[in-house]
Amino acid sequence: MTVYGTIEPNEIRQMIRKQEITGPTAGMSIGYTQANLAILKKEHAFDFLLFCQRNPKPCPILDVTEPGSFIPARIAKSGDIRKDVPKYRIYRDGIFTEEVLDITDYWEDDMVAFLIGCSFTFETPLLEADIPIRHIEENCNVPMYKTNIPCEKAGVFEGPTVVSMRPMTAEDAIRAIQITSRFPNVHGAPIHIGNPEQIGITDISKPDFGDAVTIKPGEIPVFWACGVTPQAVAMESKPSIMITHAPGHMLITDIKETSLSVL
Amino acid sequence: MTVYGTIEPNEIRQMIRKQEITGPTAGMSIGYTQANLAILKKEHAFDFLLFCQRNPKPCPILDVTEPGSFIPARIAKSGDIRKDVPKYRIYRDGIFTEEVLDITDYWEDDMVAFLIGCSFTFETPLLEADIPIRHIEENCNVPMYKTNIPCEKAGVFEGPTVVSMRPMTAEDAIRAIQITSRFPNVHGAPIHIGNPEQIGITDISKPDFGDAVTIKPGEIPVFWACGVTPQAVAMESKPSIMITHAPGHMLITDIKETSLSVL
Repeated sequence: MTVYGTIEPNEIRQMIRKQEITGPTAGMSIGYTQANLAILKKEHAFDFLLFCQRNPKPCPILDVTEPGSFIPARIAKSGDIRKDVPKYRIYRDGIFTEEVLDITDYWEDDMVAFLIGCSFTFETPLLEADIPIRHIEENCNVPMYKTNIPCEKAGVFEGPTVVSMRPMTAEDAIRAIQITSRFPNVHGAPIHIGNPEQIGITDISKPDFGDAVTIKPGEIPVFWACGVTPQAVAMESKPSIMITHAPGHMLITDIKETSLSVL
Repeated sequence: MTVYGTIEPNEIRQMIRKQEITGPTAGMSIGYTQANLAILKKEHAFDFLLFCQRNPKPCPILDVTEPGSFIPARIAKSGDIRKDVPKYRIYRDGIFTEEVLDITDYWEDDMVAFLIGCSFTFETPLLEADIPIRHIEENCNVPMYKTNIPCEKAGVFEGPTVVSMRPMTAEDAIRAIQITSRFPNVHGAPIHIGNPEQIGITDISKPDFGDAVTIKPGEIPVFWACGVTPQAVAMESKPSIMITHAPGHMLITDIKETSLSVL
């Protein structure tokens, strides 16, 4: 846990806004949900929202701002989407062009911000159930892989499902399936367990995003749909401009993780 | 159970398309989900989808067609949204103008069809758990009420949450909460139990929609968010044209009810 673990979301967002914090948000405001960010122009908003609606496991939406509004009112009342993420990435025509700490100068009146659930949310109850999470143990990013599981297309948006992987004992895998099933709004139950090749992953030691982690003898890889999916898919469609959070630099919301459980 | 209870959804839809069936669909293709229908023009589609996304309990989306497409491909592959509902209602500027059996002549290239989950889906597992459902026992429509619980606004769409009510013993109410929590995509857990006045219902014997049912001594009224909400809200915004199913005359989908359970 960082020193920021016990600070309230509103206060952390203020510190980020003042650029007193510019690094990754893991471990900040423990117990509150963090969100992935994707900003698109209004012309793409219906198709993208529909894409997320059709693919709820990789794209669980926590909030969508009204066109032109930069306040994610339902998940961070005092928030400002232009300033409250520690680091942003700008993509033009699908190509990453720059990384910035504030997007006020990039904001346009027809932009719509999508806040998408993140697997950090279900890692807390896994840890509370004494299920070790390898990438936390090894102090690195979760390994993520492109699969051969196609998302449901919507308008211009289409592409493969990206998954995150956590290796576990069989016993822990069963319990993890039970626990994450309670969180359908933050990826829910795994979409695959066991053989990576069945979902088109040829080399488990070479993730497409994040870092490789140790898989111990007898452990089963457990795969969850990943919030990187909508960003990857949106980029594929090469919109004139798209803004996202930099990996690991999320929006910290006012939503308690426990409130996202259906049971 | 009607004679249509064991007929497959595809076959029932063909019979509806040929207008061999023009009545309510309750009890048809037992085990398969039925869907509420709302058709709007593309100009309102983003706001309406956002409204449903922000209000998932009353507005659980099962499918949204691409603008201009009348095939609800994800829930009824062989379906045709213009013909496969037994009876439609046409609203112009928010006013009900006519009821028709086929909307082919009304269909426009910029229309988007929203298929929304229905509480019929969770009544099957309630009945299987031996929880009696009063409106089924009394062979009438479920009672529905406007509440003082506002929906989250999205664009032009705003209004109160409509609920359906089922009276139960305390024991059955507890079990019903457990069972319906497993179905977050078809209204999920109740939003209120007990005192109707707390949610703005002044006379439980006078529902705003559907029929009154008997509440026996000692029974608790249990209130679920209702799929009538999005239709009622859309009508309030007085779109130039809106098409819905006639009450009780639903789209029968290929989706097994059991597949909508998260646990």
